[in-house]
Amino acid sequence: MAGSVAMNPVVLVHGGASSEIPQDLEERLRQGVVRAATAGYKVLKEGGRALDAVEAAVTILEDDPEFNAGHGAVLNAEGTVEMDASIMDGRDLSSGAVCAARCIANPIQLARLVMEKTPHCLLTSHGAAKFACAMGVPVIPGEQLITERNRQDLEKEKQKTDAETPSPQKNQGTVGAVALDSNGDVAYATSTGGLMNKMVGRVGDSPCVGSGGYADSAMGAVSSTGHGESILKVNLARLILFHVQQGKAVGEAADTALGYMKSKVKGEGGVIVVSNAGDWAAKWTTESMPWAAAQDGKVHFGLHRDEARVFSLP
Amino acid sequence: MAGSVAMNPVVLVHGGASSEIPQDLEERLRQGVVRAATAGYKVLKEGGRALDAVEAAVTILEDDPEFNAGHGAVLNAEGTVEMDASIMDGRDLSSGAVCAARCIANPIQLARLVMEKTPHCLLTSHGAAKFACAMGVPVIPGEQLITERNRQDLEKEKQKTDAETPSPQKNQGTVGAVALDSNGDVAYATSTGGLMNKMVGRVGDSPCVGSGGYADSAMGAVSSTGHGESILKVNLARLILFHVQQGKAVGEAADTALGYMKSKVKGEGGVIVVSNAGDWAAKWTTESMPWAAAQDGKVHFGLHRDEARVFSLP
Repeated sequence: MAGSVAMNPVVLVHGGASSEIPQDLEERLRQGVVRAATAGYKVLKEGGRALDAVEAAVTILEDDPEFNAGHGAVLNAEGTVEMDASIMDGRDLSSGAVCAARCIANPIQLARLVMEKTPHCLLTSHGAAKFACAMGVPVIPGEQLITERNRQDLEKEKQKTDAETPSPQKNQGTVGAVALDSNGDVAYATSTGGLMNKMVGRVGDSPCVGSGGYADSAMGAVSSTGHGESILKVNLARLILFHVQQGKAVGEAADTALGYMKSKVKGEGGVIVVSNAGDWAAKWTTESMPWAAAQDGKVHFGLHRDEARVFSLP
Repeated sequence: MAGSVAMNPVVLVHGGASSEIPQDLEERLRQGVVRAATAGYKVLKEGGRALDAVEAAVTILEDDPEFNAGHGAVLNAEGTVEMDASIMDGRDLSSGAVCAARCIANPIQLARLVMEKTPHCLLTSHGAAKFACAMGVPVIPGEQLITERNRQDLEKEKQKTDAETPSPQKNQGTVGAVALDSNGDVAYATSTGGLMNKMVGRVGDSPCVGSGGYADSAMGAVSSTGHGESILKVNLARLILFHVQQGKAVGEAADTALGYMKSKVKGEGGVIVVSNAGDWAAKWTTESMPWAAAQDGKVHFGLHRDEARVFSLP
């Protein structure tokens, strides 16, 4: 799960650090991340920027109902979808994000508009909706984002007695992407429906630069997934890049930070990391995390801990 | 502006990094930060926790109409007040925050309730309002937070032509506090009305752990103020503590990170920092920043660059 070729374009995606993935779902998750990585890689091979590659990859995962982002986002305690997303350009640290966004298909695209069309970095809730409207982003009925599976999962969660502990790791299917382009610039994008049965207005790590992701072409890029509150408390993405700055290899940096999060705040999660030299790693402390990486005309992918498959692109 | 006594309680507050402070306002700002630091110090001397001290200090600044937080918060583009706040306990990295909160007197107290009464770290907008209601926090008319000065300032800002550059440094009166208690634990609290004439739903650094502040009893605590979008991009608070971890003195760590923010993203701001050994510093790159620090029965305070006054508490 680690490669090394400098200045050679690479894109990685993840489909969320989770536990308890039903077996019939596994293959669809693998196909989803492979499709997203392939699309992001196509952008890079055609000379596109890392920023365009991560947006393209995450858009595909938002549109895929198997992932907890966009269509397929989990439901909050009131049965509605509220989504968080952020994107960052490692070239100049520009960033854009939305939180508690409703009734739009692709929060990552709205996050990019926040970055490029406003003097701000983060818009929330009704302000995000107002801005989406001003930008001509179509409003869609919230129900259009809801899948039958998520509706049933919320029902089951709500029927649990207080004595039963909720399973926070179950629904951490945040999606994300990181990329390095041929100019040597990096970017990240992260998008999520958050935690199932979350309180209305709950915001996790995904829209927070430094926690849900970070990108600086002087170092590399990270996209995070997992227990949002834990990721926020340790500033997971930036923490990993500090370890990279101090000379750790990307995989070791990710393992060190994830281990720290587990021991310090008992939080589990996963990350994808790419350095500005093209080294990359996909790491997690949960049971599994669907991931895919495209580099050198090949796609590497996996979901379980010791799974690393590869195929060549045509 | 730096002292050093280990395990001796200390509290620092700031009233926002700004430029163009009218001269008749200066003395009221000094009095406000001195009053807040004195109140926080009283909590510590009576054996209270750092967390209680920073909440008490920031509550006083929120209630003071001269500062851009709570009563006196600046107005957004629609002429309403939307506030961001966060608080963090360095003992275990617990944190709570609200963003785009309306119609409550003390966002910092609501942030603490998010930390202590929910499984989450950050609630936004209508979700924050719903939670405030459930906690019995009084709803107040939004107008009650608005001062005549802020109303006039917004009018003036709106009358500017597009050609005139807005003065983003003018209204950065975010307030904040950091403290070290006799147990050796640290905490921070940050609260703001954000940027004047901001878009509806705009969220800055103040509710984002790692940017608007950070507290870890293994290192120290920071509260940030200044251009929120810049602070977010560089994760200012956590960045300072990384420098502290790597052996820099608190003042040098603050200067290094503020200098980096200025050169990398052209952002100005200020910070207060306390280490877990009781060393402290107040630093800024804007024209001025009202600050006060209470330690060893004395209150140190200032506003201009080379101003450091001191008096003994009775």
